[in-house]
Amino acid sequence: MNKQRLEAFSDGVFAIAITLLILTIRVPDVPPPALGSALVQQLPQVATYVLSFFVVALYWLAHHRMSHVVKQVDGTFVWLNMLWLLFVSVLPFPAALLARYPLQVIPIAVYGFDLILVNITGLFVTLYLKTHPTLTTVPIGKEGLRTVIPAYVWTNGLYLAAIGLGWLLPWASYVIFAGVLIAVAVRYAKILYPFTRTVKDG
Amino acid sequence: MNKQRLEAFSDGVFAIAITLLILTIRVPDVPPPALGSALVQQLPQVATYVLSFFVVALYWLAHHRMSHVVKQVDGTFVWLNMLWLLFVSVLPFPAALLARYPLQVIPIAVYGFDLILVNITGLFVTLYLKTHPTLTTVPIGKEGLRTVIPAYVWTNGLYLAAIGLGWLLPWASYVIFAGVLIAVAVRYAKILYPFTRTVKDG
Amino acid sequence: MNKQRLEAFSDGVFAIAITLLILTIRVPDVPPPALGSALVQQLPQVATYVLSFFVVALYWLAHHRMSHVVKQVDGTFVWLNMLWLLFVSVLPFPAALLARYPLQVIPIAVYGFDLILVNITGLFVTLYLKTHPTLTTVPIGKEGLRTVIPAYVWTNGLYLAAIGLGWLLPWASYVIFAGVLIAVAVRYAKILYPFTRTVKDG
Amino acid sequence: MNKQRLEAFSDGVFAIAITLLILTIRVPDVPPPALGSALVQQLPQVATYVLSFFVVALYWLAHHRMSHVVKQVDGTFVWLNMLWLLFVSVLPFPAALLARYPLQVIPIAVYGFDLILVNITGLFVTLYLKTHPTLTTVPIGKEGLRTVIPAYVWTNGLYLAAIGLGWLLPWASYVIFAGVLIAVAVRYAKILYPFTRTVKDG
Repeated sequence: MNKQRLEAFSDGVFAIAITLLILTIRVPDVPPPALGSALVQQLPQVATYVLSFFVVALYWLAHHRMSHVVKQVDGTFVWLNMLWLLFVSVLPFPAALLARYPLQVIPIAVYGFDLILVNITGLFVTLYLKTHPTLTTVPIGKEGLRTVIPAYVWTNGLYLAAIGLGWLLPWASYVIFAGVLIAVAVRYAKILYPFTRTVKDG
Repeated sequence: MNKQRLEAFSDGVFAIAITLLILTIRVPDVPPPALGSALVQQLPQVATYVLSFFVVALYWLAHHRMSHVVKQVDGTFVWLNMLWLLFVSVLPFPAALLARYPLQVIPIAVYGFDLILVNITGLFVTLYLKTHPTLTTVPIGKEGLRTVIPAYVWTNGLYLAAIGLGWLLPWASYVIFAGVLIAVAVRYAKILYPFTRTVKDG
Repeated sequence: MNKQRLEAFSDGVFAIAITLLILTIRVPDVPPPALGSALVQQLPQVATYVLSFFVVALYWLAHHRMSHVVKQVDGTFVWLNMLWLLFVSVLPFPAALLARYPLQVIPIAVYGFDLILVNITGLFVTLYLKTHPTLTTVPIGKEGLRTVIPAYVWTNGLYLAAIGLGWLLPWASYVIFAGVLIAVAVRYAKILYPFTRTVKDG
Repeated sequence: MNKQRLEAFSDGVFAIAITLLILTIRVPDVPPPALGSALVQQLPQVATYVLSFFVVALYWLAHHRMSHVVKQVDGTFVWLNMLWLLFVSVLPFPAALLARYPLQVIPIAVYGFDLILVNITGLFVTLYLKTHPTLTTVPIGKEGLRTVIPAYVWTNGLYLAAIGLGWLLPWASYVIFAGVLIAVAVRYAKILYPFTRTVKDG
């Protein structure tokens, strides 16, 4: 397996998943005079779309960061990568579900659960790279993990909280999803690419 | 962040958005003898499709022009680029809306508004590159901005006019959208690629 | 404009258009015992799908052949290329139309008309490259055109015949579409890649 | 034909096919209180989705393995490759069919039949490369075929068994499909990429 080709395939899946999201916003089928209010009612769908767009963008960035330290891949790594792509390319479904049933606990739970699965897969990939240093350009040190693992813990903890709040305060769930997204995005934005700091800053 | 990978990801999003547009033209569901007149009624949809196809093509060219002077990217640039991709990959929705409700003011406004958002994001990217010369191969001079900014002003001004006219003369809105597109396309066509002139010709 | 990036963008559009075609075959919505006969009734749809798949594949090959002699691109070439991509990425609509209304003259005409438009655009691209030798690695000679132009004439002539026959003998139209496809495909298959013969063999 | 461009085109088709699969899971259209049970009823759809995702991933890996030994391509190879892509990009249809009519013999048969067609095309490609050693970096020896051909025989034999069982024990068909997938995936995972063993290990 050529590392570049796996990267190109993964990029393709991310690019398609992010672009397919727009299909979750359906054109309303109403008489023309009712179009305005029908579109206003779709605003939660638009919010879900924008959220999901940046979620996929962020995971693409995370995938890119991970790829950056990979030198060669083995069979297990390929399948872990595929599992990651699976949970990313699933996202148009929870996004469409949340767009169709806004502010409902079940879609919030399905959506949050998918985010958690992507995160856990990302963590497994990191641990796999740590325990297989022949696959990476530089070994991932304990310090690297010491900064990465808390990030997984608090994001997944907040996603669980968002799922729990879906029952009582569904708006709060949206705020948590968006808040985590913005926090992680800001963190990424602070890192100057190409990588001038080491993995432990990540 | 590798500049090439961001470019490849962006190209993927543009290519998918432009190809998904065809899904905005629905196959009519009528008895066979009524097919001819059903297709004739779809002609405004076809016009919207062709317009949108060239809009995405033009934005792809603009993105390419911008990328050409970029040497490396930082976190803020990546997110500005993502915002640009967001407004481009949204286009299938306004296009489908305009195809479903032709000659109506609301879809014209939504469509024009998205075009304005893409333009403003493009302007922000240009300004960001100007104020961060370490990201570009050559600094973007004041002269460069002096030709770029008027282009943003008159295209966005015309889009606003198109939105305003949507209420009284919806056909005029279509003509303005198409006219701006053709004017910018002709301007691009005059520039010989690979870049033999400087950014200020753009 | 970087030639490679235009090529990558075009490849993306071809790959998406060819894969979207499967969406033209709808899953029947019938009680389970009626599924078998519902699927049998879909066989013309399947035939249309397979035909369209190979049509796009063939145009991709033709695009590749053309790109092979291109050294650099200018603005006009970019727009001619976009026009080509437009008519290719439109194909899922005529394909879906023909799949929904099999053996009807109007869908046959729309389908054939799109094929003719792709062909004519391809011819324009060839003529443009001939009259702009700075864009090509080797000048396209008169001999080159002498073999290319008859190919355009007879394929388009046969497409027109297929459209004409759609009224009386719709099955014959399908046979002509498939026959032209097979004839051109066989011709391509005989040429050993990478190009060991000159353009005039094409 | 440039080998790299055929590879990039094929990668694009695989990436799109795998991502489009999510469209086979439809958002239920029920009153909100009934959403939970509606989603539970969709679990077989989810299972079909996950199965199909890994089927495409596996075929992409198989395609990659094959490409690895290819040095240059000829016209026949290009068309065999297209036939392979055809049967892969068809998969969203049988997947949607099986998702819509779970545990029914006809969708199981259509699904299994498509898997068999992909396999047979793969076998043809291998045989074509064996008999055309100018296309490969290293000749494919008899030993190589001696390990590849049994793999085709037992996978296709099991797919046929799954189709046969679809009538009496549809659950067993699912188990066979998943079992073959896991067995082949494990086999691939054991091979360290980049290829440190020869084709006969495949």
